[in-house]
Amino acid sequence: MAFVVATYRVEAARDSLEKIAEGIAIGLTVGSWTDLPATQQAEVASRCGSVEEIRVLEETSQGTLAEIKIGYPEENLTDSLASLLVTVFGKLSMDGNVRLQALEIPDSYRRRFPGPQFGAAGIRQLIGVERRPLIMSIFKSCNGQSLSELAHAFREQALGCVDYVKDDEIFFDESLAPSIERVRRYGEIAREVAEMTGQRTRYAVNLTGTLPELFEKAERLVEAGADALLLNVFAYGLDVLAALARNPNIKIPIFAHPAVSGAIYSSPRTGIAAPVLLGDLLRLAGADVVLYPSAYGSVTLDAETCRTLVERLRQPSDIHRSVLPGPAAGLHPGMVAQLYRDLQNECIMAAGGGIQGHPDGIAAGGRAFRQAIDAMEAGEQLEDAALRHRELARALQRWGVKA
Amino acid sequence: MAFVVATYRVEAARDSLEKIAEGIAIGLTVGSWTDLPATQQAEVASRCGSVEEIRVLEETSQGTLAEIKIGYPEENLTDSLASLLVTVFGKLSMDGNVRLQALEIPDSYRRRFPGPQFGAAGIRQLIGVERRPLIMSIFKSCNGQSLSELAHAFREQALGCVDYVKDDEIFFDESLAPSIERVRRYGEIAREVAEMTGQRTRYAVNLTGTLPELFEKAERLVEAGADALLLNVFAYGLDVLAALARNPNIKIPIFAHPAVSGAIYSSPRTGIAAPVLLGDLLRLAGADVVLYPSAYGSVTLDAETCRTLVERLRQPSDIHRSVLPGPAAGLHPGMVAQLYRDLQNECIMAAGGGIQGHPDGIAAGGRAFRQAIDAMEAGEQLEDAALRHRELARALQRWGVKA
Repeated sequence: MAFVVATYRVEAARDSLEKIAEGIAIGLTVGSWTDLPATQQAEVASRCGSVEEIRVLEETSQGTLAEIKIGYPEENLTDSLASLLVTVFGKLSMDGNVRLQALEIPDSYRRRFPGPQFGAAGIRQLIGVERRPLIMSIFKSCNGQSLSELAHAFREQALGCVDYVKDDEIFFDESLAPSIERVRRYGEIAREVAEMTGQRTRYAVNLTGTLPELFEKAERLVEAGADALLLNVFAYGLDVLAALARNPNIKIPIFAHPAVSGAIYSSPRTGIAAPVLLGDLLRLAGADVVLYPSAYGSVTLDAETCRTLVERLRQPSDIHRSVLPGPAAGLHPGMVAQLYRDLQNECIMAAGGGIQGHPDGIAAGGRAFRQAIDAMEAGEQLEDAALRHRELARALQRWGVKA
Repeated sequence: MAFVVATYRVEAARDSLEKIAEGIAIGLTVGSWTDLPATQQAEVASRCGSVEEIRVLEETSQGTLAEIKIGYPEENLTDSLASLLVTVFGKLSMDGNVRLQALEIPDSYRRRFPGPQFGAAGIRQLIGVERRPLIMSIFKSCNGQSLSELAHAFREQALGCVDYVKDDEIFFDESLAPSIERVRRYGEIAREVAEMTGQRTRYAVNLTGTLPELFEKAERLVEAGADALLLNVFAYGLDVLAALARNPNIKIPIFAHPAVSGAIYSSPRTGIAAPVLLGDLLRLAGADVVLYPSAYGSVTLDAETCRTLVERLRQPSDIHRSVLPGPAAGLHPGMVAQLYRDLQNECIMAAGGGIQGHPDGIAAGGRAFRQAIDAMEAGEQLEDAALRHRELARALQRWGVKA
C-alpha cells in the first residue's frame, strides 16, 4: 500500500508530541479528535494514517519545535488536489500551531495527476531555444488601457527580443481589450516584429472569468492562437489548473502565477511551506512554468526556500516533466549573475519594471536582459559584457550589479 | 465610482507608512512597485487605487503597527472572486508583513455575486423549523466503510432527531459508497425514521471529484434528491462555490466547510483574517451555512474573531441573504449555553464526537443536544433541564457544563 507522507512542524510540549502525532494520523483518516471507540474492521484499519517519525528540532520559548511525519494511505485520496489538501491539511490547518513543511508523493499517486504537459524541455522545444535562460517581460498598467495602447506596449516589449510577454496578473477587466482580441492582435505584432528581429515573442494571456465558463474560454483562446495561459492558481484553485492540464484541447503551456499564495506560506509556524505550495502541488497539478518571488528582488523568498522550491520543480521523475522555474518580482539585468549562479540556464527570468524602466525605453530593457544572459552563457562577467553592449551598460548604471 | 475598500495591517517604520500605502494603491491597480512614468490618460487615472486612511495602532519591537485602507475601483474587478482576491491581496500577500484584515464591498459590486440562495431564513423555511437553533451531526470514520455500515451510522444519527447529518469533509474515496447511492439510501432511511420520530433528518453530501466534472456531479446529486451540498471551498476555490450558487439547477443549500482556511487565517501578521475569509468572501460566493471553529471546542477561533465573523455573515443587506453560522469542532451539549448566549437561535450547531461519543449511543447524543437547545429556548438552565432528561444528564456527566 502506498502512502502520501506529510511532514509537519509543530511547536508543543515535548511530552505531548506523540499524542499529537497519533491524533493527526487517526483524526485525518478514520476517526476524530475525540475518543470514539475504534472501529475494528480490517478495511477501516487499512485506511488509518501512520506516524512515520517524530523528530525534535529545538527547544523554544513555547515548548519544543518538532517535525512529525504522517503517512496517509493513498486509498483515502482521489484524483483531485482538493482530496490531497483536505486530507493532509484540512482541519489541521486550523489547529493554530502546525505548518505543513514537506510532502512526499508516491509514484502511484503522482500518476493520477497530469503534471506539466510541456515542462522545461517541452517549452524549449516549442519555442526553439536550446540552451540559454528564457526571458519574460511583464505588462504594466493594463487596467484602463485600450487595445491599441496595449498593442503598442506589446510591440515595444517584442522589440526587446524577449521570449514571452505576460499579462499583469491583476488584469481582469476585459471591457476595453478582450483576451481573444489581445491574443490575435499581439500574435500579428509578434510575427511582424520577428521579421525584423528574427526573434518571435510569445504571449501568455491571463485566463480570467467565472467558472465553469473559464474552461470553455481557455479552449477558445487556444483556438485563437494563444501561446500560453497565465493562471492565478491560488485564486482559482489547484483543481482548476489540473483540469486545464488534463484537457487535450489545451495544447499550450500553462504559467502558474503565485498571487495570493503568500497568504498561505508567509508565516513560519502556520500555513504551508512555499516549496510544497509552489513546488510539489503546482507540478502535480500541471504548471509548465512556476513564477515565484526570487531571493533578490522587491518581494522575496529567502535563498534556502528558493533552493528547495526549485529542487521540487526539477526533482527527477519518470512520471512528471520538470517545471521551468520563473523567478520574478523586481528583477533587473544586474541580478542576472546571481540568478544564473542559482538556476543555471534552466529558468525563465520574468521582469516588469526591470525591463520597462530602462532609461532608453522598453525595447532596450529587453535587449539588456538578453545581453546579460548571453554573457552568462559565454562565461563572461556582466561588467565586461557591458563594455560592448550599450543597453546592458545603461541598465547596470541604472540599477547596479548585485553579487 | 464605487470602490472596494481593503483594510491591511502592516508593521513597518512609521515614516514609511505613507509610501507603503501609495505603493499598494498604485501597484495593485495601474502600476508596479517600480517608479515607471505615470500614464496620464484620464481612463487610467480612474483605475488607480486610493489611500483612504492610515491609522497607527501601536508601536512594536519591529516598528509601527498600522492599519492602511486602500480603495480599489470596481471597474478593475469582474464577476469572479479571483479578480477580487488577486486585486486586493495577490502580489501583496507575498510582501511578508501585511495582513488583509477587513473588506468593505459596495452594493454595486455585491450585486454581481450570487450570495446565499437560501441563507438562514431560507433553510428554516425549507426544513420547517421556525425558531430554535438547528443541529447538525457529523459522520465519523467514513473512510473504508461500506454503504451499509454508513447507512447504519446515518440511521443512528437520524434517530437522534438532528436536523442535518453531514459527511466528514475528509470523505473523498467513493469506491465503497458512491455519493449518489448515499443520497438515495440515506433519503430512504430519513423518511423511515421520520415516520417513527416525526423529525425528518436531512443529509449534506460532500461534493468531491475533479473539475469541471464536479459541476455536473452536483446537478446529478440534486436530481437524486440531495438535501444539501457540503463543499471544501478553500480546497476547491471560491469561484467553484460561486458557480454552484449561480446554477439555477442547484436548488439546495450549500454548506461551506472551512478545511484548509486555517493555512490562510492563522498568523496574526500575514494572511487573511478569518472574518473576511469565512465571512465576507463565503457570503459573497453563496454559502448558505458557514462552518467554523467555535470559541469553545477542540479547535478554536478566539471569541472576538467569532463575533466579527458572525457579524459579517449576518450584516443586514438588501442584496444578499444572511448566512447561517455553523459553529463546530469539539462541540458537546455542555457548550450549548455558551453558544446560545453568543449566537441566539440563528445558528446550526455541528457536532461529531459530542453526539457520537454519548455514553448511551449516537441517538441519545442527538437527543441530548436537542434537549439542551430546547432548554435554552425555554429560558432554562442546562442543569435544570437535565433533571428531566436522561440523555442530557448523561451528556453533562460525560463532558461537563461550560459557562
